[in-house]
Amino acid sequence: VSWVEGAEGSGFGVDHLPYGVFSVGEQPRRVGVAIGSSVLDLAEVARAGLFDDAVADPSGLFASDRLNPFLAAGPGVWAPVRARLTELLVADPAPALRAALVPRADVRLHLPFEVADYVDFYSSLEHATNVGRLFRPDADPLLPNWRHLPVAYHGRAGTVVVSGTPIRRPHGQRRPPGSDAPTFGPSQRLDFELEVGWVTGPPTNHGEPLPIERVADHLFGLALVNDWSARDIQAWEYQPLGPFLAKSFATSLAPWVTPLAALEPFRVSQPPQDPPVLPYLRADRDWAFDLDLSIELNGRVISRTNFRGMYWTVAQQLAHATVNGASIRTGDLYASGTVSGPTPGSEGSLLESGRNFLADGDEVTLHGTAGPIRLAEVTGTVVP
Amino acid sequence: VSWVEGAEGSGFGVDHLPYGVFSVGEQPRRVGVAIGSSVLDLAEVARAGLFDDAVADPSGLFASDRLNPFLAAGPGVWAPVRARLTELLVADPAPALRAALVPRADVRLHLPFEVADYVDFYSSLEHATNVGRLFRPDADPLLPNWRHLPVAYHGRAGTVVVSGTPIRRPHGQRRPPGSDAPTFGPSQRLDFELEVGWVTGPPTNHGEPLPIERVADHLFGLALVNDWSARDIQAWEYQPLGPFLAKSFATSLAPWVTPLAALEPFRVSQPPQDPPVLPYLRADRDWAFDLDLSIELNGRVISRTNFRGMYWTVAQQLAHATVNGASIRTGDLYASGTVSGPTPGSEGSLLESGRNFLADGDEVTLHGTAGPIRLAEVTGTVVP
Repeated sequence: VSWVEGAEGSGFGVDHLPYGVFSVGEQPRRVGVAIGSSVLDLAEVARAGLFDDAVADPSGLFASDRLNPFLAAGPGVWAPVRARLTELLVADPAPALRAALVPRADVRLHLPFEVADYVDFYSSLEHATNVGRLFRPDADPLLPNWRHLPVAYHGRAGTVVVSGTPIRRPHGQRRPPGSDAPTFGPSQRLDFELEVGWVTGPPTNHGEPLPIERVADHLFGLALVNDWSARDIQAWEYQPLGPFLAKSFATSLAPWVTPLAALEPFRVSQPPQDPPVLPYLRADRDWAFDLDLSIELNGRVISRTNFRGMYWTVAQQLAHATVNGASIRTGDLYASGTVSGPTPGSEGSLLESGRNFLADGDEVTLHGTAGPIRLAEVTGTVVP
Repeated sequence: VSWVEGAEGSGFGVDHLPYGVFSVGEQPRRVGVAIGSSVLDLAEVARAGLFDDAVADPSGLFASDRLNPFLAAGPGVWAPVRARLTELLVADPAPALRAALVPRADVRLHLPFEVADYVDFYSSLEHATNVGRLFRPDADPLLPNWRHLPVAYHGRAGTVVVSGTPIRRPHGQRRPPGSDAPTFGPSQRLDFELEVGWVTGPPTNHGEPLPIERVADHLFGLALVNDWSARDIQAWEYQPLGPFLAKSFATSLAPWVTPLAALEPFRVSQPPQDPPVLPYLRADRDWAFDLDLSIELNGRVISRTNFRGMYWTVAQQLAHATVNGASIRTGDLYASGTVSGPTPGSEGSLLESGRNFLADGDEVTLHGTAGPIRLAEVTGTVVP
C-alpha cells in the first residue's frame, strides 16, 4: 500500500506504475509514473539521487521528452527501476520524494514515446469475420490465410497522437453506391476501432528473426489505441494494397504505458487454434491477457469485451512480424487490431455494431482494466 | 565547369551536387556532396567558414549523421547553399576547400537520412496492369479506383537500408499451388522493384492537406529505391490488408539524394489522365521527369525504361497522401512504385518480365540518368 493519498483503489496503485511523458506549464517535458491522482516526476527523483544504485544514469533515462531511452534500456533496467519505485512509494517518503509528486490535474500529457514503425494487426476472429462479411458479401468472410498467420499492415507512425487530441473528420474520395466515379468530401462513415497497442524496447538485429520465446526481452508494455477509420474512404481505396488514407489521418494512443510486469498476474491461455499453427508461432507460455475493455460514446458505454478472446497473441504477432528478418526498433507500436467479442454489445467498431457512424462533436473513450489495474483511457472528440 | 578533376562528364558535375552522409575510418559521420569521384565534406566547409553568410549555423546542418536537419531547413536554405556550393566548386579554390575534398574510394556511405514514414505507391499503369493480370487472372487487371487516385500503402521505415547492404533471402509462409495449407521456408520467388523515391523537407501541420501547388515547399529531392519483394510470401499474405512481410525485410536506398533543383531542366508533362482527376490532383505545372532508368543483373542490363511515363506524379502523390489531413514529417520517403514501360524489355520487376526469380549471389543494380546527370545507383546482393 502506498503512502500516496488515494492511490489505493484508484486503478493507479503501486501494482500498476505506468510510464508517461508530462510537462508543467512551460517547463520541459520529462518522464513520470502515474500514482493515484498524481504523477511522480522521475527526472526529479533522479536529480534527488533517490534511485540509489538501482540504475546507472537515471537522468539520461528520465530527463527526456520521450520514453524511448528508457524503452531502449531493456528488462535489465526496467525491473530494478520498478522495484525501486515500488520501495519508494511504499516506505515512509523522504521530503524530496514528496516534492517530486505533481497533481495530475496540473500536468499536460504528451505522446509517451516517439513511434518508430506502427503495425496494425487484425487478430480478432470475430472482427475479421464481421468485417469480411460486410466488405466481401459474396465470399467466405475469413480469407484462407487468416488462421495461418496474424494478418497485418503498416500504418502511419507520424500521425499517432496522444489521447485528447481532437480528431478532424478527414476528407477523401468515396464512391456512392451504384456510381462508377468517386466524389470528394468529408467522410460520411467515420468510425473508431478499439485496440490494444504494444510498445517495444531494445531493438533486434536486422536479418535475425525474433524467436517467440524471446519476445519478452523486447516488449515493454501496452497502451490502449483508437484506430480511427473512415469506412467510405476505405471501401473505395483499399484494393489491392490495403488501407491508406482511411486510417492515416489519426490514431490515438493512451498517455500512460502499462508495463508488462504489471500484467503478469493476468496472463491466461489463448483460445485454441485450429488448424495448428506453424512451429515459429508456438509459444512455451501463455500470452493472452485477461483485460476487460469497454467503449464509451458521449458518456454512455456502448460495448464491452475482453482481450483474452483474441485469436493471435502479441508474442505470435512479433514472432511473425520478424520471421522474414525485419528488425524491431525501440518504440515500435504493434496494435492488436479491433477487439470484438462474439455477442451483440461486444463489437469493437461501429461498422460491426450497425450503429450510426460518428457525428461531429461525438466523443469516444476507450477503457480497460486488469483486475484492480485501470489502463489509461484514450479519448478523442470528432471535429469538422 | 568545376575545378575538381574529372567532375565534368562524370554525371556528378556542378549541375548535380547530390547530398549524402559519409564517414572516413572511425571519424564521425557528416554530410557531404558528391562531385566527380570525390566527396566535398560540408562539415569541413562549414568549419572553415566558407559558407560565408549563405546560411546561418552551417555546422548544425552538416556536422550531422543524417540529412534530416538540412532537409528540415527548407527551400529558403537549400537554394543559397546550392548557389554557394556551385560558386565554390567553380571559382579558383581556396586551400581550405581543397582540403575538404575526400576521394569517394576512401569513404563509407551511410543511409542518407532517418526515414520517418515510408509510403510506397503503385503509379505505373503498365506495372499495375501486369501485376493485376498475374495476381487476379479472372478479373479486370486494373481495379476501379486505380485511375482516380494514386494507390499506395505504408512500408516499413525501419528496414530501409543503404545501397550495398547485403539482402538476406527472407523466410516465410507460402502456399504451394493446389494446397490448402502453407509451408514455411526461404522465399522461392525473390524479386526486385525498380522505383524512384522522393524525400520530404519541412513538415506540414497535422490536419492540413498540402495543396498540390505547394508541394515543392516540402519536397527536397529523389533517390533510387529497390523495393525487394518476395512474391510467394506476398501472394499468400496480401489479402485483405496489403503486402507486409513480402516487402518489410529490406528496401534499398541510393546513398546520394539528388535535389529537385538539379532536375528542373528535365521536367516534362505527364501522360494524359482519363477520366479527368478530381481538382485536388490537378497541378499548375509539369511534375513528370525525363529520367532514363535501367536494371543491371549480375553486370548485364536486363531492362530499360523512363520515369516520364508514370501515370501519377509525385505532386499528385503528396497532395493525395495528405488530403485527409495526414501530416508530412521531415525525412518521409515516398516511392513511386515499380516503374515499368509498355514494351518487352522495359519491365521494372522479374514478376512481369517472366525471367527467373533471384538466386543467392545475384547482384541487382538500378541506374538512372537525367541528361548529363547520373543518379546514384542502388545495388544489393542476395545472400542465403
